[in-house]
Parts: sequence; structure tokens; C-alpha cells
Amino acid sequence: MSTLAAQLQQMESHRSVFENEVRQLPLPTCNAFGTAAAPQAIAFAASSQVLTTKDSATVAQHFAQSVKASGNAVLRVAGPASPRVSGKRVAALFSGGPAAGGHNVLCGIKKMLGADNTLFGVKGGPKGLLEGKLFEITDADVASILNTGGFDFLGTDRTKIKTAEQFEQVKQTCIAHNLDAIVIIGGDDSNTNAAILAEFLFSGIKADGSGVQVIGAPKTIDGDLQVPGLLPISFGFDTATRIYAELAGNILQDTRSSIKYWHFIKLMGRSASHVTLEVALQVKPAVTLISEEVAEKKLSLSAIVEQIASAVIDRYRSKKLKHGVVLVPEGLIEFIPEMNALIAELNDSLAHHAEAFAALSVDARPAFVAAKLSAANSALFSSLPGYIINMLLADRDSHGNLQVSLIPTEQLLSDMVRARLQQVAPEVPFATHHHFFGYEGRCGAPTLFDAAYTWNLGLTVGALILDGRTGYMASVSGLSAGGEPLAIPLSGLLNIERRHGKDEYVIEKALVRTNAPAMKFFVSRREAWAADDLFASPGPRQLWGPAAKQMPMTVALNDGADSLLFKIGE
Amino acid sequence: MSTLAAQLQQMESHRSVFENEVRQLPLPTCNAFGTAAAPQAIAFAASSQVLTTKDSATVAQHFAQSVKASGNAVLRVAGPASPRVSGKRVAALFSGGPAAGGHNVLCGIKKMLGADNTLFGVKGGPKGLLEGKLFEITDADVASILNTGGFDFLGTDRTKIKTAEQFEQVKQTCIAHNLDAIVIIGGDDSNTNAAILAEFLFSGIKADGSGVQVIGAPKTIDGDLQVPGLLPISFGFDTATRIYAELAGNILQDTRSSIKYWHFIKLMGRSASHVTLEVALQVKPAVTLISEEVAEKKLSLSAIVEQIASAVIDRYRSKKLKHGVVLVPEGLIEFIPEMNALIAELNDSLAHHAEAFAALSVDARPAFVAAKLSAANSALFSSLPGYIINMLLADRDSHGNLQVSLIPTEQLLSDMVRARLQQVAPEVPFATHHHFFGYEGRCGAPTLFDAAYTWNLGLTVGALILDGRTGYMASVSGLSAGGEPLAIPLSGLLNIERRHGKDEYVIEKALVRTNAPAMKFFVSRREAWAADDLFASPGPRQLWGPAAKQMPMTVALNDGADSLLFKIGE
Repeated sequence: MSTLAAQLQQMESHRSVFENEVRQLPLPTCNAFGTAAAPQAIAFAASSQVLTTKDSATVAQHFAQSVKASGNAVLRVAGPASPRVSGKRVAALFSGGPAAGGHNVLCGIKKMLGADNTLFGVKGGPKGLLEGKLFEITDADVASILNTGGFDFLGTDRTKIKTAEQFEQVKQTCIAHNLDAIVIIGGDDSNTNAAILAEFLFSGIKADGSGVQVIGAPKTIDGDLQVPGLLPISFGFDTATRIYAELAGNILQDTRSSIKYWHFIKLMGRSASHVTLEVALQVKPAVTLISEEVAEKKLSLSAIVEQIASAVIDRYRSKKLKHGVVLVPEGLIEFIPEMNALIAELNDSLAHHAEAFAALSVDARPAFVAAKLSAANSALFSSLPGYIINMLLADRDSHGNLQVSLIPTEQLLSDMVRARLQQVAPEVPFATHHHFFGYEGRCGAPTLFDAAYTWNLGLTVGALILDGRTGYMASVSGLSAGGEPLAIPLSGLLNIERRHGKDEYVIEKALVRTNAPAMKFFVSRREAWAADDLFASPGPRQLWGPAAKQMPMTVALNDGADSLLFKIGE
Repeated sequence: MSTLAAQLQQMESHRSVFENEVRQLPLPTCNAFGTAAAPQAIAFAASSQVLTTKDSATVAQHFAQSVKASGNAVLRVAGPASPRVSGKRVAALFSGGPAAGGHNVLCGIKKMLGADNTLFGVKGGPKGLLEGKLFEITDADVASILNTGGFDFLGTDRTKIKTAEQFEQVKQTCIAHNLDAIVIIGGDDSNTNAAILAEFLFSGIKADGSGVQVIGAPKTIDGDLQVPGLLPISFGFDTATRIYAELAGNILQDTRSSIKYWHFIKLMGRSASHVTLEVALQVKPAVTLISEEVAEKKLSLSAIVEQIASAVIDRYRSKKLKHGVVLVPEGLIEFIPEMNALIAELNDSLAHHAEAFAALSVDARPAFVAAKLSAANSALFSSLPGYIINMLLADRDSHGNLQVSLIPTEQLLSDMVRARLQQVAPEVPFATHHHFFGYEGRCGAPTLFDAAYTWNLGLTVGALILDGRTGYMASVSGLSAGGEPLAIPLSGLLNIERRHGKDEYVIEKALVRTNAPAMKFFVSRREAWAADDLFASPGPRQLWGPAAKQMPMTVALNDGADSLLFKIGE
């Protein structure tokens, strides 16, 4: 074998040139922890900031032990911890979709726990906790996963722990492994689960009657887990949006190079449009749709189509531009009031006429359904392209709901724009391509921002555990001012929502606020971006060199920062 | 407006943090040119290496002036040029699909021409040359496009210059702008066009009877423009494959994080599988299809499906892996002998029965067509999923050919694998996602390799023009040994091929050679990659820091390099 072939074989299993080097990258550390090499434990103290929601009274009854202990007060750093706590046994797991930086949370926890406490990894998410799939995480593991993307070191899943049997299984795992604490690294639902588990495990678990601590860490590429002033952003958002923004920027350069295509790009992000707004700020495309604005302005599907068609027409007539980019948030359809109404009536109607519907041939179904709908919904339904109608009539999920995320909104919009152009401006050229960027962005190597943020989140989680806390979500705020570790009482975030016919506790998803600075800046510029090519190309995210240090634009704007540079430690 | 909002507005129009910084990045320069700040012109001399093809005799008749002047000998560096040439007027254009590094070719030409010669840019590709859309490129332009991706500074198109009228238009543009040279930055077809143009413009164009020089530069992300020992790779290939490899690597990490999906990824690259092979070497997925191997082994569609299904089954049965990645080259379908035969018969049959076919309802068409086909083709046709059949019966292009690139091969394969699994291993879970990576990779910021390579290609083009050469393609070989500028006589690459019923000159596309070192290395490892997760994640391409300097693995292996580090200058 040649020298080079031997080298290439050594790059298998996460040993690419990049992966080998990025593991050596030093990470900035909040001053509260001292140095990255030997971060110190810290003592937390309740601040005067107490969190409430409309349902705080009910929450206080059902989460009695947690609320009594925390008073729903935000914890802030009181000073170095003393004496040193040892002998703690901690299990950490990933929950829900992966996001860049999860590995660094583990690295931070392990570093804070040190050699005199033990960190276990749980394989395969919450399900692994039920099944007791724990193993000890070593220093060698930490060295190999530091600054790498993905959740592949542990795996993840979407199991919700809610039945009595499941709670009992968790308890058995705690006993079997003599655990003192559990860390749940996840999004809004997973942190709700952490709150419930914290209350269940609060006391009476171990032989001496004591409980098991539960701490959450805020993960989601969607960016919809935010607490104003306390949690600027969930981790993974920066990496995902920088990946999508690079791709969108590349495509924008392609549109002006090839000078003949409109690209419709759908972006992952579930309901909220944070991802789409961030990517828009990064690349400045001709058209960007923001679901929350569509809902607020009660825009119809045809109004949205008209808006895009106008941009296509104006760019061609005023500057002969035959190209452009349209950004579409994944959850758009549900935010269009009339589509939402149509889908709701369809769900009902299909459930009511299930038998008759099933007996019909596929060709006969649309007319059958249209006849059952209200006049407005029937007209809208019949105006849609055949592939969308087929999708609207497809099998429902286990709750009888349409799987809206499967609807190719980007294709629907471009087809409707084409039809509209044929009516009003047939001379305007309109050749299209479609993209959906999602899975590409969840497991990339973290940006320097996400790498540093999650490292410090992990240190904070570890410090909270050593400080004996339970029922909190770790956070690091003040990301452009050195970084301040803090803890948010999970019970202070809980609301009650009716889901699938019953009341459930939830942490409300943070949607894009149309009056927030980031949105206002976007609105102030979008007409100029539509009128001409003013796009920028943010390029591949850099881990070294002069372009490495950057935070999300939406976060910096909404936090009132005066630059994009983040500052942790220093 | 806030300070930050003002900063963000200043980032519009190609002024992102990354773009501002990357323009300052110093570029390595071949020793033959001296320094990057003041590169010197060089004199070229014919080497003893003469290029021939099977059609050299015919080419020598039709390209009499070019062949007489060059003798089809490769030009190598003779030494510094003297005296200094000034007053040349040169026009450069992009032709065909965009590729990263094109801007740096222009920067290199401009630098070599210096202030005493003039460089014009041609807007909108070859069509812009016909229409005389020229403008002078300034030093400020060069400073703003250096190291940026895309062809957006000039735009491009796919016009082929072949009619007498078009040649006359080119001549008029040369006269109107008093041009001394034209540079065509393009792929195999564009360089063929450059050869033809060089012969046409060889003499008798200007008032004094002299000609206009034509020089080509080797561009294409597909990597199918290569000349063994002389042209290691076309520019843009490294950037495109690194972009696709990052995305494929991210998805591989996602597969092992989410532990439940198979992702089928189709990769751009037209006929040849260079892009797919390079990405496979970078990320080491479970399954990679190489079109050239499929053709050589005469694999049937069902044999390919069987190969993928076996990997799915084996991974599940031996290691409970429910996930993996399959890489599919864009051009695969045409390399499957039976599909190729089916498509050929379909093209004929649809042309022969066009009227009867058009009169049928859409539902009735498949049966009608199946009845006209030979038994083998009919059976294969009928075995395909409905959406593929519809596509096979869709409108032909202007030559009556199926647009194979539109066939969703990735979806076809995964559907057939699912059907096969249901027959032979229904217990094996098989949830899938599909991707097509193409446009994302053509206009990204160039890798350090592509940035340096194209800068030196530009210097070489400029030096060839100052040295009075015509009918050559610039190249830089020895990319891991300092870099050697050289020139390949275009007439020495020409073959005659029958296309659309008539003989045409072509530069043969370089396909993947199944006995080349890169392919042999891939074959030696792929079974191990299929059996378990040995993948690597090459990460985002870095322009600064310890992971920036890397060349394509296929190029390094095929060139016999002893490391992935490229070395230009030093």
C-alpha cells in the first residue's frame, strides 16, 4: 500500500484532517469558571428574578417540591464553590433531533465533574434511560468528541417519558446505577419532560430517602427555545443557520452566474421562522417569507403568491433580472389562516366519511371531498395543484392529523407563481429549481460560537449538579459581554396547553416576534433586496482565522449587541 | 439605526465578514513566476512531448495553421520573458456551468498583463462575445473578486460558436475592440470551441493581417477534463466535492445520531463519477455506486438494487444498524446497459409512433408503449415504478432524447430496494430520505487549493498571451511539487465523434478509470465501509489554520503523491 493510501485509511472513523485538528482547538471559558484547563465549581444563589406564566398557580400544585425549593427564581453565580463535592454519579442523554454542540455539552460536564465524580452516557436517548443503557464516559472519549458535530457518540430518540410505568423504569435505572443526577439535553418538549422528571425524582428515590437531580440543557436548531434576557438562543441554531446560509449564498451566486433560474429554498425549523429569518439576514435574498408575519397579517395563499410574482415581474421589468431566491420556512402552510382552516375541516371530514372515502377510486376522491367542504374551503381546495390535493388526502398520522411537513411548499408556491405569471405577465421568464435544507444542518461541526457556547453550557450543568440543584435548565447569557452562567427554573416556564384533547404541560415555543429588532431590520431592507441583487455570501464557517468569531445576527440584534463578535471570557 | 444594523447593512453586496477577510488572503505562486506581488512573464518552449489522438491526421488538415505552429507539442517554461510585451488587449469570458475559482483566473491574468496591457471582461459568456458586451476590468474589480466563488462578476452561458454567422460576429467583436487575444474559461466543449476559434482567428483578422490569440482554461466541477501527466484536474472540482463531502459527512453523522434513516444522495457530475468517487473517499459511506464500474461489469438495475439491499440487510443482521448512506452519481442510469438499451428503443419507438401515442390518454400510454418494445425492454419497462414510467414517456429534448438527468435515480433505487426488502427480508427496517447536491457546489467560495490553482492558471494564461501563443489550454501540473505552469496544444486533444448524426470535434471526457489508484483504493476499502460505520466528516472547508491545505484525494492518489498537502511555490 502506498504511503498516501495508508494515511487515507487512518482517516476513517472520524479522523479526517479537519476532525483531527478541530479537537485541538482551545475554547474560551466564562470568567466565573476561571480557566479552561481547570475550571472551578461555582455556588449559585437565587436572584430576585422570579418567573411566572398564566398557569403558575396550577404548576405550583403539581410541581410542589420543585417550586418550593426554587421559588421559581433564576439562579445566578454567587462565587466559587467550597468545599469540593465528590462522589456524584451523573447520567447524560440527548433527546429529540440532533444539533451541533451536543458533544461539547458532555465535554463541559465531564470537565466540571472532574476525576472525583462519574459521568455516564445514556445510549439512544430517553428510551436508553428506560432501558438502563449507561456506560461511563472517559477522558479519552471527551478528547475524541470535543468540537465534533452530531449526537453520534450517544445517539438520540424521541421517546416521551409520561406513563407511570416509564417513571418507574427511570427510577429503577437510577437505583441500579446509583445515580445522583440526570442531564437531559433537548428542546422544549424534552425540557418539559425534564421538569416533570425533576418533580418525580425530587425525593424518596435512593435508600436514604433522597432524590435524583435533573438538569436540562437547551438544544434545538429551530431556535424556538429562548427566554428573553435569560436564554439568548438554543445551541445548534448558529451552526445550522450558517450551514444553510452558506448553501443559500452559494445558490445566490449561482443565480447571478447562470442568470436564468429562480431557486425556491425551504428551510427546516418546524413552526417558527427563526432559521429562515437568520438565513435571510445572512444572505439578503430577493424574497423571504416569515410564517409569523403571514399569520399576523392574515395573508391568503394567493396573496403570498402575488407577493412573489410581483418581485419576479419587477426584477425582470426594471433590471432584466431573470433570477432570484425565495426562502420558505418549513412550517409556512400552518400559518396561512385559510390553509389552516382547510386542513382542519379536511381532518374532520375525512374522519367522518372515512368508510365512504376509502371505498372510492383515487380519481373520484377529490370531487367527493370538495362536495363535503364549506364553500370557501371547497374553492381553495379545488384551486390547488393535483399533487397537493393528493397529499392533503393522504393518510393521517396516529392523531388523525395531516403531516404538513411533508407538503412540498416550495414546489406549491413556484407552481402557483408560474400560473400567476402566465395570467398577468406571460413574457417574464421563470425557470425554477427547488431545495429543502434540513438534515444537512443538524450534525455539522459546530461553529466556534456553538462550540464555545456548549462547552460553557456543559460547565454550567456540571456546576449546578455539584451545587445540588434540580429542576433547572442551564444557560449562558451575556454572550457579547464575557458570558454569564445561570440557571432557569423549569417550573417557571410551564404553561398548560390542550393537546390531542387533554391538558398538557408545555414550555411555549418562542416564535419570531414581528416587533423584535431583528425582524424590524429585515423589514427595513427587504424591499431593496427584492429590487436588485444585494446579496452576500457568508461562506463556509471558519474555525480558525479572522472570520471565525461571529454570533447569529438575529441574536445580536435582539440582544442589542453592538457587533457580531461574541465574547466569552477574556 | 443601531450601530449593529448599520454594520449589517454594510455587509450587503458581497461584503460578509468572510468575504471581506478572504479577499486579503495571500496566495502561493509557482516559482516560475517569482513573487505573487510582482509575478514575472515567462517564455515558453516546445517540449519533446507531442500529443496525438486516433484522429490526429484529420485534425491536422482542418486545424492546419494551429498544428503547423504548435506541432501539437506541450509547452514548458523556458525562462523569464524578455523584453516586456505591452499594449495587448485581451478579452476573457466564462463558458458553461459555473465553478469556484473562475474569478481568480481573471485576477491572475490581470496581474500578469499588468498596467501596460488591457484586460476586458465579456458579460454573459460566449453569447456576450457575439454581441460585443465587453468592459475593461480594473484593479478595483480584481480586489473585489479575488478568492470569491461563482461566475457572477461576468455571468456565463452555454452558447456554442459554430455557425459561419457566429464566427463572423466574433471577428467583428475582435475588430471593434481591437483585441489581440480571447480567453475561454470552460469545460471540454468550451475548450473544443476555443480550438476551433483559435484556428479561425489564427490570421487575417486585424488590418495588418495578423490574427487573434485564443487560450483556454480548464474549468468544470465534474472533473472530467483531465490529461494524464499534464492536467491533473479541472478547477472547481475540489471546491464542489468538498462542499458535497461536508454535507454527506454531516448526514452520515446524522444517520448515526438519529439511528433510523437511510439517506440516498445523488451527486452532480454529469456522465463521469469523479465527483462521487472523491466524495466517497472523503466520507466513506456504506454504499457508493460508480457508473463506469457498472458499465464495465454490465450490471443490471436489479443487480445494483440487490447490492444495496444486501448492505442494508447485512448491516442490520450483523450489527443492528438501521441506517446508512448511499452515494449515487448523477449519470448512473445511462451506464446501466439494459437501461441504456431501453431508453434508446423508447426514443425510437416514441418518435415512430408519435401521433398514435399523443392521441392516447395518459393512463393508456404505458401499455401501448410496452406492447411496441422488444420482450426484454418491455419487461424492464413494466417493472419500473409509475413515476419513472411517466418520466420515461415525458417530452423529449430538441434532439428527441430523454433528459436523463431529470430522472430521480436516488428515489428509484430506494423504492426498488424497499420492494426487494419486502420480498427477502421484511423484518429489516428501511426508512429513507433523498437528496440531490448540485447547485450548492458550483459557486461556493473556492478552497485554498482551487484559489491557489486558479490564481496560477490565470498567471499562466497571461504569460501565454504575452508569449504570443494561440490554441493552447493553460495548465499547472506538479501540484504537490511546487507547481509547473505549462500549455497543452488543444488540437492535440481533439477526436472526432458522431453526435446527432454528424461528425464533430470533441475533447474526450475523462471518465473514472477502474484501474486507477484512486478507484483501486476505494475498492479495497468499500466492503469494510459497508459492514460498519467507519465514516469521517471532512467538515467545512477552511481557508485559514491547520486544516486549510488539502488537495483532492483522487488527484493525490492518481498522481502518486505521498500526502494530501498541495505545494505551490515555496
